Amino acid sequence: MKRANTDIKEKKPMTQSTLEYAQAHHADNIDRLFELLRIPSISTSAERQDDVRRAADWLVTRMQEIGLSRAETIKTDGHPVVYGEWLGAGPDAPTVLVYGHYDVQPTDPDEEWTSPPFEPTIQGDLLYARGASDNKGQHYVHLAATEAFFQTAGAPPVNLKFLIEGEEEIGSPNLGDFIQANADMLACDVSLISDTGMVAAGTPTIICGVRGMAYMEVVFQGPKRDLHSGAYGGVAHNPLQVMVETLAALHDEQGRVAIPGFYDKVRPLSDEERAEFERIPFDEEAFRQEVGAPALWSGEAGYTPLERLGARPTLELHGIRGGCVGQGQKTVIPAKLTAKVSMRLVPDQDPLEIAQLFEARIRALAPPSVDVTVHSLAYADAALVDRDSPAMGAAVRAYGRGFDAEPVFLRAGGTLPVVAMLNKILKAPVIMMGFGLPDDNAHAPNEVLSLDNFRRGVNTSIYFMEELVATYKS
Amino acid sequence: MKRANTDIKEKKPMTQSTLEYAQAHHADNIDRLFELLRIPSISTSAERQDDVRRAADWLVTRMQEIGLSRAETIKTDGHPVVYGEWLGAGPDAPTVLVYGHYDVQPTDPDEEWTSPPFEPTIQGDLLYARGASDNKGQHYVHLAATEAFFQTAGAPPVNLKFLIEGEEEIGSPNLGDFIQANADMLACDVSLISDTGMVAAGTPTIICGVRGMAYMEVVFQGPKRDLHSGAYGGVAHNPLQVMVETLAALHDEQGRVAIPGFYDKVRPLSDEERAEFERIPFDEEAFRQEVGAPALWSGEAGYTPLERLGARPTLELHGIRGGCVGQGQKTVIPAKLTAKVSMRLVPDQDPLEIAQLFEARIRALAPPSVDVTVHSLAYADAALVDRDSPAMGAAVRAYGRGFDAEPVFLRAGGTLPVVAMLNKILKAPVIMMGFGLPDDNAHAPNEVLSLDNFRRGVNTSIYFMEELVATYKS
Repeated sequence: MKRANTDIKEKKPMTQSTLEYAQAHHADNIDRLFELLRIPSISTSAERQDDVRRAADWLVTRMQEIGLSRAETIKTDGHPVVYGEWLGAGPDAPTVLVYGHYDVQPTDPDEEWTSPPFEPTIQGDLLYARGASDNKGQHYVHLAATEAFFQTAGAPPVNLKFLIEGEEEIGSPNLGDFIQANADMLACDVSLISDTGMVAAGTPTIICGVRGMAYMEVVFQGPKRDLHSGAYGGVAHNPLQVMVETLAALHDEQGRVAIPGFYDKVRPLSDEERAEFERIPFDEEAFRQEVGAPALWSGEAGYTPLERLGARPTLELHGIRGGCVGQGQKTVIPAKLTAKVSMRLVPDQDPLEIAQLFEARIRALAPPSVDVTVHSLAYADAALVDRDSPAMGAAVRAYGRGFDAEPVFLRAGGTLPVVAMLNKILKAPVIMMGFGLPDDNAHAPNEVLSLDNFRRGVNTSIYFMEELVATYKS
Repeated sequence: MKRANTDIKEKKPMTQSTLEYAQAHHADNIDRLFELLRIPSISTSAERQDDVRRAADWLVTRMQEIGLSRAETIKTDGHPVVYGEWLGAGPDAPTVLVYGHYDVQPTDPDEEWTSPPFEPTIQGDLLYARGASDNKGQHYVHLAATEAFFQTAGAPPVNLKFLIEGEEEIGSPNLGDFIQANADMLACDVSLISDTGMVAAGTPTIICGVRGMAYMEVVFQGPKRDLHSGAYGGVAHNPLQVMVETLAALHDEQGRVAIPGFYDKVRPLSDEERAEFERIPFDEEAFRQEVGAPALWSGEAGYTPLERLGARPTLELHGIRGGCVGQGQKTVIPAKLTAKVSMRLVPDQDPLEIAQLFEARIRALAPPSVDVTVHSLAYADAALVDRDSPAMGAAVRAYGRGFDAEPVFLRAGGTLPVVAMLNKILKAPVIMMGFGLPDDNAHAPNEVLSLDNFRRGVNTSIYFMEELVATYKS
């Protein structure tokens, strides 16, 4: 892990009263965050559409209360975007675009939650709730910092724009068009995203690359109805058998993705990049314990675990719908099954092209006895960010001050479609500094947010605005 | 399909008034059957335990009303057995043991039913309800015939014992012990089972062989919790990937079951048996249309479709529980998955030994990164029946008269654990003559019973008692 080029000096913050206000109001901030966390804004769920909308409206109200001069929901073809701004710092001050998302992952399997997912619960230093870490708790950090400025300094020292979307967990299908159509409104000097995590508690981590994605659904339809396996087995082709044989053929024995052309456009890791990965202390046994499996996977041959996690593409199976899944011994040949599969992509793989290669591979594997249909549900581009911008310098210093430690840079395995969009359309540097931790259980039962990280995150946000002003003045 | 050696003569039945009574009371019989069909006696469902019990109690009451001298539920370690008897025909008359089951299959997927599964609905000649064909409607045929004898002839001409179990759909786990423990009570000259179907409407079909079964569950546990596929994919081994690779390895490229030792004890088909199968007119295209798939499977190399259906063992995958199965694009590596797999067995495969071979194969395939556990849920022996007994002759004649057509013999693909038990323990010939049809949707949504088959079935049952008396007198 390369130590970022930072220089943590002892300096007296101009913003002492702002920091003090934020810390004095920590409990109030968490109380307000509770209100947002209680709204089950699951964007993938058709039954939760009203709740998604409620979360958006809550944010608009909160932004107005904080003191932003503009706060509204803006329609898209899907869930609305929440947009807020305060441009009172004037044309000479830098403008920061804060990105976040107010939608959350589904909660299943519900029975594994130790407290209800939408009833925020504090145990020790941890706040349990769906969305606590991903991402309500993280973008609220910046609203809390903004409020502290309004309450103590009259206003923030920078111009602020908030872009909080409601479709991140479904792959941000409308965000690219939104940003394109509103590029003037969103114009900024730097965009700031806190939707990532640290490699470990106490190690502030700036993400300098994210993977892209192609999310696919494959439907296998054999018989027109479920069949009695005794009366038809051996002659009717079982589509579940076809499915497992097809999905098994998507990896080869070296752990590579077995789709012709899949690796053609992968940008090879340079010797320098590999050397950098080598320097990151990675404890395989600790990682294995965190995963909780009896052993780790050797994965794609020829690459280290961290390379496979951040810089190599992967293919994952998420679930199979259909067939007999209840208790007992139903003896059917299921008629129809649907598999969910996603591929994490790296520069310069094109998600659309990868989806086509995937479909071609599935079609080549499908036997004549089963109808196979391939749908793509979501695409996202991979992205790498500029580590050398002045804004990045400000981020490194602010983050270091907030957490009393030098930040490290990491190419992460996750996908943030917005990064490539902001890179391409707004052409402003993207800073990813997040306040999540590896054991936050994002996307799993019992999601948590570290309250210490929240507190330090608010400080970091305040420091960042201060550092940014200093950077742009100098 | 070998034509059974029958001789349908024009004869005036001694039982004309009994037949007339039964036909005059067809609507009443269906009304009573409706009462039984309304009880959701799903034996696999923990929530349906009371309903299973209610179905048993309903049968006891009905048997008492009909006129049996004894009718009661008898405890087992699972669902009770319903036992009824009437021995008034005396020691010189033959004794018939009628087997049936009052439990039914689950109803999922519920949304595919066009009428509620437990609200019997008649459309034209079809009675729609879960259990209509499998097996409530079929064993009720014999109760209706018995009632007609009591109402018209004072009593049936044979001694009757009814053994109606409540665990057929979960593999009859307690029936073997029950029959063993009650062998004296159940002693009979012939046992009669109507829990099978005809090869086509109008072709009465006597089943002369059933396949056995070993029903297995395999649990794959990788990580201790669901993981974010972006943050862990490529290093944490996805147990769903392991599962599909494992299950895919259970068939080879010739469609054979790829478990070492699986075929070792399979009794080879004799030239005579193969020639007999050859004579059965099997319309592959009609079968394909019934299945509704774009093509049939070539299956195990070297065997015809009918041989594969009735005389060769198979392995079927029924479903996979776990993982992301809802709408949308959840991006998790699922922690734990369970696969349901069954094997249909033929003489002389031993279900216990096959289960052990299965487990050994799964263990050999499992990687160190995933914990794999194998459970066996049910076992049943395969069986072949004696086609040359006097009772079989009576059955062939009765069935032929009931349906105005010569019965055919068929080795069926399904599993009836009771057949091997009755064969082994009671040592009386087993007659399987059923009134189901290929498109009854047993084990699937929209199960139906042909009302014409029910009516003819009642006649067949009356004829059978008459023929049996004649056979045993002669």
